[in-house]
Formats: sequence, C-alpha cells, structure tokens
Amino acid sequence: MENLNASKAPLRRLRLGIIGGGEGSVIGRTHRAAALIDGRYDIVAGAFDIDPERGQRFARSLFVPEDRIYPDHRALIDGEAARNDGVDLVAVLTPNTTHYEIARDLVNAGQNVLCEKPLTTATKEAIELVRLSEERDLIFAVNYGYSGYPMVRHAKAMVAAGELGKIRVVQTEFAFGNPTTMTEDTTGHWRTKSTGAGPSAVVGMTGTHAIHLASFIIGSELAELSSDFTTFVPGRELEDNANINLRFEDGARGSLWASYVAAGANHGLRIRIHGEKAGLEWNQENPNDLAVMYPGGDKRILTRGNSQLHPAAKRATRIVTGQPEGFLEAVANIYTDVADVIDSRIQGFAPDPLALAYPNIRDGARGVRFVDAAVESAQRNGAWTSAGLDFPAS
Amino acid sequence: MENLNASKAPLRRLRLGIIGGGEGSVIGRTHRAAALIDGRYDIVAGAFDIDPERGQRFARSLFVPEDRIYPDHRALIDGEAARNDGVDLVAVLTPNTTHYEIARDLVNAGQNVLCEKPLTTATKEAIELVRLSEERDLIFAVNYGYSGYPMVRHAKAMVAAGELGKIRVVQTEFAFGNPTTMTEDTTGHWRTKSTGAGPSAVVGMTGTHAIHLASFIIGSELAELSSDFTTFVPGRELEDNANINLRFEDGARGSLWASYVAAGANHGLRIRIHGEKAGLEWNQENPNDLAVMYPGGDKRILTRGNSQLHPAAKRATRIVTGQPEGFLEAVANIYTDVADVIDSRIQGFAPDPLALAYPNIRDGARGVRFVDAAVESAQRNGAWTSAGLDFPAS
Amino acid sequence: MENLNASKAPLRRLRLGIIGGGEGSVIGRTHRAAALIDGRYDIVAGAFDIDPERGQRFARSLFVPEDRIYPDHRALIDGEAARNDGVDLVAVLTPNTTHYEIARDLVNAGQNVLCEKPLTTATKEAIELVRLSEERDLIFAVNYGYSGYPMVRHAKAMVAAGELGKIRVVQTEFAFGNPTTMTEDTTGHWRTKSTGAGPSAVVGMTGTHAIHLASFIIGSELAELSSDFTTFVPGRELEDNANINLRFEDGARGSLWASYVAAGANHGLRIRIHGEKAGLEWNQENPNDLAVMYPGGDKRILTRGNSQLHPAAKRATRIVTGQPEGFLEAVANIYTDVADVIDSRIQGFAPDPLALAYPNIRDGARGVRFVDAAVESAQRNGAWTSAGLDFPAS
Amino acid sequence: MENLNASKAPLRRLRLGIIGGGEGSVIGRTHRAAALIDGRYDIVAGAFDIDPERGQRFARSLFVPEDRIYPDHRALIDGEAARNDGVDLVAVLTPNTTHYEIARDLVNAGQNVLCEKPLTTATKEAIELVRLSEERDLIFAVNYGYSGYPMVRHAKAMVAAGELGKIRVVQTEFAFGNPTTMTEDTTGHWRTKSTGAGPSAVVGMTGTHAIHLASFIIGSELAELSSDFTTFVPGRELEDNANINLRFEDGARGSLWASYVAAGANHGLRIRIHGEKAGLEWNQENPNDLAVMYPGGDKRILTRGNSQLHPAAKRATRIVTGQPEGFLEAVANIYTDVADVIDSRIQGFAPDPLALAYPNIRDGARGVRFVDAAVESAQRNGAWTSAGLDFPAS
Repeated sequence: MENLNASKAPLRRLRLGIIGGGEGSVIGRTHRAAALIDGRYDIVAGAFDIDPERGQRFARSLFVPEDRIYPDHRALIDGEAARNDGVDLVAVLTPNTTHYEIARDLVNAGQNVLCEKPLTTATKEAIELVRLSEERDLIFAVNYGYSGYPMVRHAKAMVAAGELGKIRVVQTEFAFGNPTTMTEDTTGHWRTKSTGAGPSAVVGMTGTHAIHLASFIIGSELAELSSDFTTFVPGRELEDNANINLRFEDGARGSLWASYVAAGANHGLRIRIHGEKAGLEWNQENPNDLAVMYPGGDKRILTRGNSQLHPAAKRATRIVTGQPEGFLEAVANIYTDVADVIDSRIQGFAPDPLALAYPNIRDGARGVRFVDAAVESAQRNGAWTSAGLDFPAS
Repeated sequence: MENLNASKAPLRRLRLGIIGGGEGSVIGRTHRAAALIDGRYDIVAGAFDIDPERGQRFARSLFVPEDRIYPDHRALIDGEAARNDGVDLVAVLTPNTTHYEIARDLVNAGQNVLCEKPLTTATKEAIELVRLSEERDLIFAVNYGYSGYPMVRHAKAMVAAGELGKIRVVQTEFAFGNPTTMTEDTTGHWRTKSTGAGPSAVVGMTGTHAIHLASFIIGSELAELSSDFTTFVPGRELEDNANINLRFEDGARGSLWASYVAAGANHGLRIRIHGEKAGLEWNQENPNDLAVMYPGGDKRILTRGNSQLHPAAKRATRIVTGQPEGFLEAVANIYTDVADVIDSRIQGFAPDPLALAYPNIRDGARGVRFVDAAVESAQRNGAWTSAGLDFPAS
Repeated sequence: MENLNASKAPLRRLRLGIIGGGEGSVIGRTHRAAALIDGRYDIVAGAFDIDPERGQRFARSLFVPEDRIYPDHRALIDGEAARNDGVDLVAVLTPNTTHYEIARDLVNAGQNVLCEKPLTTATKEAIELVRLSEERDLIFAVNYGYSGYPMVRHAKAMVAAGELGKIRVVQTEFAFGNPTTMTEDTTGHWRTKSTGAGPSAVVGMTGTHAIHLASFIIGSELAELSSDFTTFVPGRELEDNANINLRFEDGARGSLWASYVAAGANHGLRIRIHGEKAGLEWNQENPNDLAVMYPGGDKRILTRGNSQLHPAAKRATRIVTGQPEGFLEAVANIYTDVADVIDSRIQGFAPDPLALAYPNIRDGARGVRFVDAAVESAQRNGAWTSAGLDFPAS
Repeated sequence: MENLNASKAPLRRLRLGIIGGGEGSVIGRTHRAAALIDGRYDIVAGAFDIDPERGQRFARSLFVPEDRIYPDHRALIDGEAARNDGVDLVAVLTPNTTHYEIARDLVNAGQNVLCEKPLTTATKEAIELVRLSEERDLIFAVNYGYSGYPMVRHAKAMVAAGELGKIRVVQTEFAFGNPTTMTEDTTGHWRTKSTGAGPSAVVGMTGTHAIHLASFIIGSELAELSSDFTTFVPGRELEDNANINLRFEDGARGSLWASYVAAGANHGLRIRIHGEKAGLEWNQENPNDLAVMYPGGDKRILTRGNSQLHPAAKRATRIVTGQPEGFLEAVANIYTDVADVIDSRIQGFAPDPLALAYPNIRDGARGVRFVDAAVESAQRNGAWTSAGLDFPAS
C-alpha cells in the first residue's frame, strides 16, 4: 500500500537536489510538498537562490546539510558528482530563460532532471535538450503537473480504451483574472515582458498547460493553429489574452482561450472533449470529479476513488473517494512516477508502464514549439501555422 | 401586478395570428405558450401548415374560429385586412427559407410581425426587410428568445451601468450533441442541408443566438471574425462544428463555439463576459442564476427575483426568487415587450423604454450578416472577415 | 402534440372560475399563468377579492365578462349554476382560514375544485371535505404544485419501478430566509400568527409541501413524527424553525427541516431519497435535473427532456431538453392533469391513469393532519406522535 | 514562507513516532502524508502493527531505523525515553477500543500525543485522560481532521467576528453509502459491532465529526439531543442510520444526519449554519469553496486563497487560489498546528494563538460524550438527553 506505485518496494528514499525555488517561491513550496508527501524523496542538496547567501539561509531552514548547500547549479553538479551518495534527481525551478543552460549542464553531467515548464524559451534549444537527454538515456520530466491528477489519468485511459469513440472536438481554456490592471499587478511584471517570459506571456504561462492536457488525454498532438493575441492592460509588452483555434493530427478541432484578464476567475483551467460516442468535461478547480456525457442525456459524474475507474487513476490515488485530493498531490504523482522509474533502474527491473505517464522532455519540447507557433500565427493575423515538431530519431 | 410590464393597463387582449408552427412543431408550441401565459394575447387566426387540410385540423384543435383558419399566409393577410377586428401581430414560424417572402408580404400589408430567426437566409433580403419595415414604422421582432431571460436583461443592465468596466473578453458557445451520427439524426436532415438551412447549418441555427446574446449584453456589435468549419458526421453537407474567433466594435475579443457534435451536451448555450472591473457568467440550462466575479476572488451568485436586481430584470419576472422560470417565460417576455409597444400605439402613449429590449429587425439582419461572414471566413481558411452591416438611414 | 396530455382531443377549452388571488397576489398570478399556458382553460368568472369593488376592477383587467364578475364565492356559485356554460372548475386562492367554508360550499353545489394548500386549518374539517367531495364523486385537487415537476414525476416512477430498491431514508427540507427579522418582515405578519396561519407558521406553509413531495415520490405515507419547534425572530407568535424526525409507514426514516430563518436561502426545497439500490436528489431551484447515485460511485444527472425518462415525466414536458421549464409549468401540469380528467368525464372515456397524479383531496387532508401532528409533538417536547389519518370508506 | 505557521523558524524537524496504521491502513497513509508534506516531521520510530513481525516489515518499508522499530506501544515508550533524541510526538492510529490504554500510558510517560478519534469508547475514560494530560500540561490533539480545512477555519473566524450575527440554525450531515448491504460490506464488520466500534456504529464514526465541526465553527457546545437510530442492513448489530435533533448551549437548533446507507453518496460531510445576518454552507467534497448567503439574495462563493479571507484561513493555505488543496492538507494543518506549539515550547516562546485551533483532548472527550448521549436518547425513543460534560478544573 505504501509504495503503491512501485512494482517492487524501493530500496531507499531517493535523493533530491533543487535549483531555485527559494524563499517566497510558490513553485518551490509546491515541489517540496510534492516530493515529500509520499516519503519517496529526501531533499538533500540545493542551490535555492541566485543570491547565494539568501539561498544558504533558506537551505538551512529546510535542514539541508551544510556541505550540500551550493551557490549555483554548477557547484551542485560538481559537488554531487564527487559523492557516493549523490542526488538521484535534480529539480529545476528557476526563471524560464535560465532553464536551457541549467538543464543542458545537468544533462551533460548525466543527471536526471525534473524541470519546470516551459522547458526553454526557444524551440531550437528544446530540440537540443531532447537530443542530449535521449543520447544519454536520462530521465527528464517537465512539470506539466495537471496531468498528474487521477481524473485526468482516467480521462486519458477512457479515450485510449475507445470509450469516447473517435475524438472530434477539444475545447480548453486556462484563463484567470487577478490582477486585471497594471497597478494591481502583484504577480510580477517579468511574466508580461519578453526579457522575462520569452516571446509570449499568457500563452507560454497557461496556454501551454492546456495544450499539454489536451494532447495527453486524446493521445494526439496539435498539428496547426490560428491565434488572435491581444494586450488589454496598458503598459504590458506581451499578450494578456489569446483566442486560438486548434487542429489536431487525428482530425480533432477545437479552441484554446488563455487569459490574464478574465476578471474574477480564480484559476480557470478547464477542458471538454467530445468524441463520436461520448463527451467529457474536467475542471481543475474541482479536480476530483470528471463528467462523462452520453447522447440521449445520460450524464455521469465520476469521482476519484470510485471503484469503476481505470488502473491509471487508481494508481494516482492516495485516499478514499469523497476525501478530496488537490494540486500538490497531482504534482506528487509526477514525482512518484519519476521515482518509480528511477527506482526500477536502480534495482534493474522494467518500470510499471503506467509510471511512464509523466510528461517527458518531448512533451516539454512540444510545448515550446506550440508557443512559438502561436506567436507566429498571431503576428500573421491568425494565419494557420504548423505546430508540429520533428524530433531526432531516438 | 397583472399588467406588470405596461405603463398603462391594456384595453384588451391583443389578437395574434400564426403562420406555420403546426402539428408536431416544437417552435409552434413554444410560441403559443409564450403568447398565452400572461393573458395578453388571444390566438385568433392562423395558417399553421403548408398542407391546408392538416393546418385546418390543427387550428381546430386550438379552437381557432373557422372563418379565421387560412390555407396560407396570403389568405390570412387578405382575410384579416377585411375585418374590423383583424390581428395585431403575426408570428412567422415557417422554415427559414420561406421567412423572406412571408415577412415581405406581411410588411407590405402593414402588419406587425414577430418572426423566428434567422430573419432570412441572405443578407440582401434582410436589408430589404429592414428598409420596408422601417419605412412603414412597423413593429418587427425577431425571436432571439434567450435575450428575454431576466438574468440576461440584468447582465445587459450591469454592463450599461459600467459595473463591469470596459468589456475585454466575450466567450460564448452554443454546442449540443444529440444526435451525433447520421443514423441517429432524428432532428431532421433539412437542418444540415443548404436547401433547407441556407449556407450554414449549426452556425445559422445556434451560433447566431450566441452572437445576438453577446451583442445584446455588451451593447457592441461584432466587427469581424475568423472561422473554422468542420463537418464531422459523414453524409452531412454543411458544417456541424465551428470555432470562430471574434472581434467586437468596442475592442472586445472572444470566441464562439457552435456545434452539433458536442456528444452528450443537452443544450449548451453559455456566455462569459469579462470587463476591466468584473466578469460574469450565464448558462442557459440554469437560467435563473447569474454569476458575477470580482478580482480578489469575490464570486457572487445573483438569482432571478432578488431584491438588488436592475429594473430590466424585475420587469421580466413573474414569480418569487427560488421558484424558477424557464425558456417559455423568456420567450413570453419578448411577446410581452411587443404587446406593450403595440398597446402603447393603440392607446397613444410612449412605450416603456425597457419594453424596447425585444430583438428587432436590425438585430435580425445583423444575425443574417454574421452567418454569411462566418461562411465566407471559413471558405477563406479563417481569414478575418467583416461582419459589419450598413443599414439604410432610418 | 398540442394536446399532449389527453387521451383524446378536448372538445373545447375548459371554463375556469377563480375565488381570491386578486391584485398583488403572487399565487393568483401563478394560477392564471398555469391555467393559460397550455390553452386548456379560459378564465371566465371570478370573485377575486374580499373587497368587491377592488375585485371588480381586477377582474376587468383580466377581461372577465362583466356578468361573471362576482362579489363573493356564493354569488359565483349561484351565478354559474344558472348558466348553460357554467364553469368547469373553480380555483380557491383565498387565505387559509377561509378554505374550508368556500370549499364546502363549492362541493355542496357540485363544483369541481382546485384549492390552494393547506386544504383547511383543522384535520376534522379536512376529513369532512373528503367525505363530501367523494360522496359527490367530484374532482378536487389541492395545489401541492411541486409534484407537477417532470423530474419529480420521474423520481416517483423510478421508485415505483423498484429502481431504488426498498426505500430506507428520506431527507427533506424547505427552508428559506428572507426576511430574517421582524422589521424586515415584508411577507406579512399573518403568516406568523395563529389567527392568520392556523396552529403553525412555517411547518404549515413550507413543511407540508416537503412531506407531500416525500410521500408522492416514495409512495408511502408518514406514520409518525418527532418535532422540535423554535421561534427565533422576536415578536413572532408561531414557530419559524422546525426540525422534525420522520418515520414512514413502509419503514423509511428521515427528517424534515422547515424554516423561515435560513438567512440567505432563496427558496430551499430539496429532497434526497435513498433506497437499497440507489439514491436520488432533487432541488427545486434547479428543477430540470435529477441526480441518481449508485453504490460504487456512479452518479448520474438526468435532465428533463432526456429520451430515457419514464412516460410520467415525458407527459409533463413541453419543450426540449436543455431549455428549462420552471415552477409555472409545474403548476400548469397540475392544471393539465385536472383538465384531462374533467375532459374525460365530459367526453365519457377513462382518463389517462398518469393524469391521476395530481394531488387530490386526500393528499390535502393528510397535509392538514401532518401539521396538527407536528404541533402536538412539539408541544410534547418531541414525543413521537402519529401522523396517520383514517379516511371514510370511499 | 516555508515555516509559514511558526512565529519563529523551527530549530529542527520534529521527531514523530507512530502506533498502529500499518500495512493497508488508510488512516496510516493519511497521517504519514500529513506529517511529511510540510517538512516539519521525520517519522523516526514506530510500532505499526499488532503483529510485531508484520509491523517490522512495514517499518522497514518506511525506512525507519532498525533500533526504533518497536513491537508495541510500551516498548516504544521505554525505548524512546532512553534516548537523547526521543520522539517529540506520538500518533495513535490503532482501533478505537485500544485508544484509552495506549493514550493513558503515553500520557503517564509524559509524551505528547496526536490520537485518532474517538478518543475513547466511554466518557469516563475520556474524562480521566483529560485530567491526566492536563495535569502534566501535555499537548494532546485528537484528529478531528476536517477542522483543519482553511475554509472551515474561515467559517469559524466569520462567526467569531460576528459576521453571521447570533447563530440560529445548524444543519449538518455525514452520510455515505458504500456499501449498502451486508454482502457488499467491504469496509469491515468491526465498525458495525459493539465489540469493535463501541456502543455506536455510524454516529461514533461519522456523526461525531459533524458535531465537532459544528461546535468548532459556531463556538458553542452541544447541550442536548434527541436521536432516532435505525439498523437497515440485515445482520448488523448497531445502528447504520441516525437522525438527531440538536440544541446548542447558545440557543442554536439544528439536526444531524449520520448514515452508512445513503446509497450512492461518496462521503457526505456537509454543514450549513444560519445566523441573524447571514448563512453559510460548506461541503467537504468541494472543500476549497465556502458559500455565504445574505438576506435579499446575495450569495457569495469564497475560495481558499482569496485575498479577503481571515488570517486563520490564510495560515492554513499552501498554494494559490484555484489550485485546490484536499483532505491530506487539512490533516497536515493539524500536524502543523501541533508542530508550532511543540516548537514554541522547545524554543521557549508563546505559540501563535491561531495554532491552538487544533482539536484538543477536551474536544475529544466531548465527542465521546456526544456518542454516549445519542445512544441513550435512541434507547429512550428520542427523549431529549443532555450532551454536556463537566470537566475537571484545569
């Protein structure tokens, strides 16, 4: 029961190092909770801040051993390489524009990585990381954390089992609305500037999650898109609202709405998928439920923990139905997937195929490509633009 | 209380004639209920069916006097014109492609009209009807019935009062999913063929409602659009799914999803509007509630009948909060608006300005233009296409 | 389609007389809408107000013929009895304490009656009305209007078909909260005083609806109850909150919460029923949906108009799924049931058994007995008290 | 940010020992996740199973050091007492009937305790534990874990701040329905027998949570109750359904429904509270939202993470609004409260008053008394029975 998700009991807790995510970081807190909740990892090393002193202070508050508190990612790589008990996995939680360099160095040092999204801020860099990582056969996860929710896993399993029939329409959105003016803009301006966020603001921050979610569930990649970008809040450099029409490789159509100006919306990640035989709807703000609708009017609400769910959902579930799990548990499921795969390598057995559901580096690269394509289409006044990506032979 | 919506008590019930909407017609039943529920109309004349005998049988089942049962709309026009107690209003409930001719004849005879949407199946015809009707200063309503809901009226009043601030985003959809295959297609093939439906299927049937609703609430017309049409069900001639990006005249952006293939969705008319200060959401399947959201997380559910609502909503309300009203009452509000205006002319006073909220012939013409623009954009692979309309000087 | 609910087409519209429900009366407006919406009745006679002049003015606003505007119920009885085209049905919408006398006079004159609830304010009087009415074989309906909702009809049909298994638990409530203090008490003090309301305030006004609903659906009467009454708002004479534990004749248990002090609740009529095999939940504020829950976690939302519903629900449905119907339509279904039965007598055929679903005079008497029992139990500090009723042999 | 809930940074992670909660235990998994997620505890010692060998195997799977794996709670007490780095807190997760003895031994050894509910299965034993624990000034928490939810904390703060006015009505329920027959009864028969569950089954398992929740929020204890118990499933010894009317010390009234036979309900913990000024509703299955209703119809949905919430809610929040937290985080908040108080003692400062929100031993004793009173009232056919408790002077 404890090692619910492993094919074989782990020999030990895994050793986790963290780059970034220091004092005041929401994403840092999220990753630590996700790594710790199942007792699969110890946080043993870190370079938590661009300011080494502040990072050291923060590391001490986490009780990281003094000799494994590092000033930067290079020092961490070197220090851990020199130990017998070096880290098994490094989480990269730094600002977007630094992902590429840090991830490249980690990969070149043969390190397994769990990187925040976006993988990089340019497609070319992303492709290079795919090549480097796959050449070394490393584990490289990208934290599209919403795909860790049990009911998302169930939705994917339903589609894969043909329960919806051929998929026709995918409607998705990730639109929130705090703050809605520049003065209220307490989430930090860097997310709305090209120097901080790269070529896109809201599409790169929220839209890419929605697209990953869509492809994850329907099992088909985005083929092309037509986007309309707007900047509503005066003083912002990049788009804060985007309406994007979608065409998937398997013929499904749909749309994405990504927004920072959906005034009053708390979070706003939602997806609806309709196939020939049935439709489904999932809303991240009530993630324990999944609605499945059938022609004729039969609408069913499935709930995490229900006995009739697919194994992929059950595997990602800790507690009984009706006692909700949340976002931290979703991200924890990504960490647990990765732990299972790392552990299977340590012990030399084949990993549980269900553990391979974690978003990997190819998913990360596709996400970068999607953002680039959306920017390009918007610049061309909505001309349909390919979002496809040719990977190196693996 | 009884004549809640009139500035002055009516002198008599109004006399309603009906063209179409005979045996088995859902829309016929809807209009009769809407006309009768408030005791403002008697149904005194009709040409209910293209088959005069069947129409006569049906008219008798409604207890229409024998001498006012007509074989077709021309006979009705002539017969009623010859009477002192001729009809005050004629409802046109026939198939789309016949609207133009019937409406034109009625208008030329000086008759007030309440026509089902779409007004016509071509923009040019719609413009002509606008001209003819306005020259004669007739009352001509087009049944965008969803705009009759009290909470839609309240939403419009909120926007007009500046409670949402400048509008930025409009997301709307009207997507249902029964049936989802050709074999199951029990709603009749004519809706999916150009001979029956005109140039568009689902956009003309459902999409145009959603666009009227959007413009009605935000008080701004659609400027241009970019559409993507798909036909999923084999054997259908016209589109059964459309994703359309929207740009409104006041700068708002948004999207529309119109679909016949949203498998399992019952009805699927929903709208969300976000301004600088707040957002709102309304779902036709639960029409007595309106959600209003404010940055910072305050989400309020307003309910039909609540004391704090705008007069435009209260005026459209019959019973106390918590005892729901539905679609028939929404359409009844259109009928009552029209009755108030007709009655004000009979008695010679200025109508209640709130009664003028009913969708008029210009709204009808704009709806036709929207459908034409959506078809054109889809044919041009999503190129942005003007949806604007120049009306004759009135 | 039009005369959806009749086994045979009606020969004519029925003639309806109304006692009470005049100017400003919410219940009056409700009944008129319910009677008119389906075109089955004309309102041809009335004594609408205790003040004959005001009643006359109001009757004229409804366009009732001058010679059928009466000063009181006795005049109406006499006047209509003298006509060949006398009324087929009389609706009694006066204050509670007058129901008995008016209903008795109507019954003694051989008139069919549709009386607002409560039937009377004392069990003994109710029993007498049952006897008188049944001796004359009259149609006598009592307006427990919530039982007219299609999804309530479906719920009843599900239980009758054994789809829930033996019923175990019935949880119901009718609790609203406007106003919550005496000063705010704009609904009128008479409802909170024994001179106006009889022996009970909120239990007689709302609780009796909930109990009828429960018995209607489960097909078993209330056997005994244990009640706790409280008066929270200073200055009120009668209870404004009641918690009542329930035992039904078939062994089901449950509870009722009736309240005027549920601050902020709009209406608050809700019922949940759990049997051996499944449970169901219905909330009057969203009446088009019915939730059905199965062990293991399958929860289904059924919607009015869905193809899989029982005939009893379909019969009570006017428009397609997803276009909601509301409370007026529910009461209209009671009127239509009654019309079908009256019409079957006029034409001499057996009525559609489904039309007999309307709440009859025995249901009305049971409701009066329930209120008396609840008062008695509260006076005895919650001692279990029989709510059963022995009817005269019929 | 990390040590969000402490007035001062902790000097070290606390050392947690666990009794019970071994292989296959749902409650064991819950506690471990709750203790680990915030990085405030290490699980360093345990006696996880009544079978020492199985317990040892399980302890190894958690990587507990060999020398701190104990065969039973007495060995743990002795072993940890002999160490300089002995445990700071012991969690008791064994079957109900063993709580008293284990807790007594721990308290007598001067150990801080976090015990699963019910504290004991008899009021007298509970009172003794209160006395022993308070004499030694120990920290003794009882896991009424639902009170750890941020929106429950906010509800309590609203009431304390007078935002609802004087409380009038409390309606609560904890009713689920899997399984609903004996054959399906996979949750184990011991919960339905007196030898395992003590004098009550469902009231002791779920009802006591609902009553704690009610008192926690309204700040008033239960004074007396009137209960109706039923055993629906053949073969069960104890009640599986209870309807209980409630009277609180401050004059509030209400009811509790506790059930194992609410067929199809997933979990079913819900509470509604109405005061003079407003009402609120919270449903554990969607715990991130709290509905607040005001007379006149303003209904507001507050969400965890919103800026306007009380500090007590913010303190219990890890991630941003719209990314849900769940039950494990609620229990983690209990663990963090306790950690803050233990840490304040270690470091010698006064604890954050908000940390004292955790359910303490008096709450535990009151819960035991409630169950005894409910059983007694049911045996007396619903006679009102005192649920009050006289504590020793502290």
